[in-house]
Amino acid sequence: MNPEMKPPVTDMPAEEFRRHGHRLVDWIADYLQHSERYPVVAQVKPGDIRKALPRQAPEQPEDLTVALDDFERVILPGVTHWNHPRFLAYFAITGSGPGILGDLLGGALNVNAMVWKTGPAATELEEVVVGWLRQMLGLPEEFFGIIMDTASVSTLCALHAARERLGLSVREKGMGAGPRICVYCSDQAHSSVEKACITLGIGQEGVRAIAHDAEYRMDPTALEAAIQDDVRNGLRPCAVVATLGTTSSGSVDPVKEIAEIAARHALWLHVDAAYAGPAAILPEKRALFSGWERADSVVLNPHKWLFTPFDFSAFYTRDPQTLRAAFSLVPPVYLTTKEGDQVHNYMEYGIQLGRRFRALKLWFVLRYFGQEGVRQALRYHIELAQQFAALVDADPDWERMAPVHFSLVCFRARPRGVPEDRLDDLNAALLEDINASGQAFLSQTKLRGNLTIRLAIGHLRTSSQDLTAVWELLREGAARIVAR
Amino acid sequence: MNPEMKPPVTDMPAEEFRRHGHRLVDWIADYLQHSERYPVVAQVKPGDIRKALPRQAPEQPEDLTVALDDFERVILPGVTHWNHPRFLAYFAITGSGPGILGDLLGGALNVNAMVWKTGPAATELEEVVVGWLRQMLGLPEEFFGIIMDTASVSTLCALHAARERLGLSVREKGMGAGPRICVYCSDQAHSSVEKACITLGIGQEGVRAIAHDAEYRMDPTALEAAIQDDVRNGLRPCAVVATLGTTSSGSVDPVKEIAEIAARHALWLHVDAAYAGPAAILPEKRALFSGWERADSVVLNPHKWLFTPFDFSAFYTRDPQTLRAAFSLVPPVYLTTKEGDQVHNYMEYGIQLGRRFRALKLWFVLRYFGQEGVRQALRYHIELAQQFAALVDADPDWERMAPVHFSLVCFRARPRGVPEDRLDDLNAALLEDINASGQAFLSQTKLRGNLTIRLAIGHLRTSSQDLTAVWELLREGAARIVAR
Repeated sequence: MNPEMKPPVTDMPAEEFRRHGHRLVDWIADYLQHSERYPVVAQVKPGDIRKALPRQAPEQPEDLTVALDDFERVILPGVTHWNHPRFLAYFAITGSGPGILGDLLGGALNVNAMVWKTGPAATELEEVVVGWLRQMLGLPEEFFGIIMDTASVSTLCALHAARERLGLSVREKGMGAGPRICVYCSDQAHSSVEKACITLGIGQEGVRAIAHDAEYRMDPTALEAAIQDDVRNGLRPCAVVATLGTTSSGSVDPVKEIAEIAARHALWLHVDAAYAGPAAILPEKRALFSGWERADSVVLNPHKWLFTPFDFSAFYTRDPQTLRAAFSLVPPVYLTTKEGDQVHNYMEYGIQLGRRFRALKLWFVLRYFGQEGVRQALRYHIELAQQFAALVDADPDWERMAPVHFSLVCFRARPRGVPEDRLDDLNAALLEDINASGQAFLSQTKLRGNLTIRLAIGHLRTSSQDLTAVWELLREGAARIVAR
Repeated sequence: MNPEMKPPVTDMPAEEFRRHGHRLVDWIADYLQHSERYPVVAQVKPGDIRKALPRQAPEQPEDLTVALDDFERVILPGVTHWNHPRFLAYFAITGSGPGILGDLLGGALNVNAMVWKTGPAATELEEVVVGWLRQMLGLPEEFFGIIMDTASVSTLCALHAARERLGLSVREKGMGAGPRICVYCSDQAHSSVEKACITLGIGQEGVRAIAHDAEYRMDPTALEAAIQDDVRNGLRPCAVVATLGTTSSGSVDPVKEIAEIAARHALWLHVDAAYAGPAAILPEKRALFSGWERADSVVLNPHKWLFTPFDFSAFYTRDPQTLRAAFSLVPPVYLTTKEGDQVHNYMEYGIQLGRRFRALKLWFVLRYFGQEGVRQALRYHIELAQQFAALVDADPDWERMAPVHFSLVCFRARPRGVPEDRLDDLNAALLEDINASGQAFLSQTKLRGNLTIRLAIGHLRTSSQDLTAVWELLREGAARIVAR
């Protein structure tokens, strides 16, 4: 080696990292405290941000100050603020302070926990943290936990394992050899179920969208009938996905009855509790989850309603052997390690070989808030949702569209005197106006064929004042549209 | 709403965030500068970390100071340091200062860029940054870019699109209806190709592992023969995966010839350049990539050899329409947005609905280093690898096992007088000793049936002094084992 050969480029010197890092931490501290200064929804048109940026990377190095300035000047106006107390669309989330700091540490260590050896602490802290969460949720000890990135991937993994357990040698022979496979979910299930079935080669025609009842819950009788139908037709029922807290309305499938049916037909039961799962931490909400302890797999997303920055999806299964049998491919020699079954090599349980040190962020969140703090925060969100629902219920010009089990309220404006066939346009225009104002961000769905406004609470700084203000915006907005 | 109802739990106050954040930034600045203080490979036994942690989450909130102290005391000893200048295993990586800060900002904003509207800046900065990178790589403008998390997922998406393009209605009908599908790659390809085929329902039997030549390159004649064989047997060839920079030896498949064959048989050509892709930025290395501009899709990982913290995989395709046709599922109403084809809704092009604001970290990296800095850093790594290879070549007790195209050197100890059938044990013991010492981390493969040591360079602080020291460790270690 030529000892004279010096690195022509070094990483950012410590002094510089400190300087930019402190500036960024200060900016973030202020942002987290005062994100309400910004419009919730970015006030930009398509192409605005792209056009404001150079078409090529700079040829010469730049001081990071320039990029940080550009961030504030160019990027920030194009940010839709998910970390804003009036972000009430989709499912509202919180990237909390402790979570952000845990994520920072994970990024700095840059560990790839593909096997135990490449990240002993990452692997074992993952075991510990998913274990803590499992206990808080009241799931039995036999559930094996693993951190995935998103519920889309968790559900794909669940159905992958379900397919493997059929014993059709799909892993070896592919999907062409055996009978056609069917997966059941309600017509209110998340699109990730259908996407997973497309990916797995089951196909959209293999997805049975089971009808829902008056409260948007899967109808078990219809499920049973669909399974029997498929069996009669020589198809092979594989798995059923029950949802606890559907995307559209937050409804709760009757998991207990579904579990009975799944057991009777030897189907894999996957429970999608991506959003509502954390509510199982509350004893008073546990009854809604009755039966999920019989599931083969469960997914819930701490990045949704557990104050953990994106991405962090917690996946549990009582049959890790099948999950591993479905996925495990240990490249000979290259990734063989000698610890054997003493350890978990998490790469064997999913799609991704590379795995970020995600456990740190939930570890910080659970320690900072404590179990008691988590319970109080969840209860407060549910209480806010119930109070908002009470406002809707008390006003004859408004209609509630679904029960409020968690922190999601579905409703619509129904001003007296406006004909039914004008209501969809009215509510769409109302939503459009409010979101364009930058004052709040709400989203929409269709329930009973009617355009419905969704208000989801999940940010730690959302207050009753925020919701009072949003309620006023809604009422004034509706009145203005009626008067047009 | 009850205006008296105050949030019982608040997020970390700004003052506290600042204090902990500054402490963490200072710690990271010091860590990045001096990670060589720590043993590269964690000196812990299975269970050590787990046993040192409580079995339950704390009931009451804790000051984050306690968790930060525990991090240093309990977690750090279990970290295998990927961000260490003597981490030379697998593919060595750098989580650089600007990359870590970009990632921090992404975590704090906590944007989910599933559709343009939910993250206009995240979406458009993604377009810009993958565009910058595409230009630097010399890929044609018609390549559409998207950020994925890992190459495992990128390759799965590529093969998913390839399957869709066959026109067999797999999306709708699943894999049962059509002919059996085949995917081709060399027997040196990454395990993610096989894993993707398992997931997609193509099955392991649908993967054709094509033989390699003396330099571990896919043999195009064998590829052509395998395709013809399958066609004759009524199977349906679907895609070929060529690798530029294989995991085992860094070999380079003859993409130009493979592209000819793929075109002749109308196969989707996916190029896996996960590790070596960034070398295409260097004009003097561009020839090795000849032909990849004809690919249907390309993956390379800035989190491998472009100084970007995990996870960041750049995926390019010239056929985004097919990728979108394979994956797009826009839940009606809930995620419908009105911008239409003016914008990219990136969720339509992959598995995950949720998408982190990853563009920021590569944006910071490219601005901080500049194109010139990136070139110099890559050149330096390649130069170091060549010099290390020269040491191996000059020593009669050592044998080089593969050409050095990039920054990976494959070699083994072959001390004079030691019989051939003892060499595998000797090299395995040598590797074990060095890795256990905490002085350096190297990994292994098998080449020509022989256990081979892999030394991969990719960290920005790896110096010629480090490699001189590692070479001494290797020589002393081998001598000690021979003398045992």
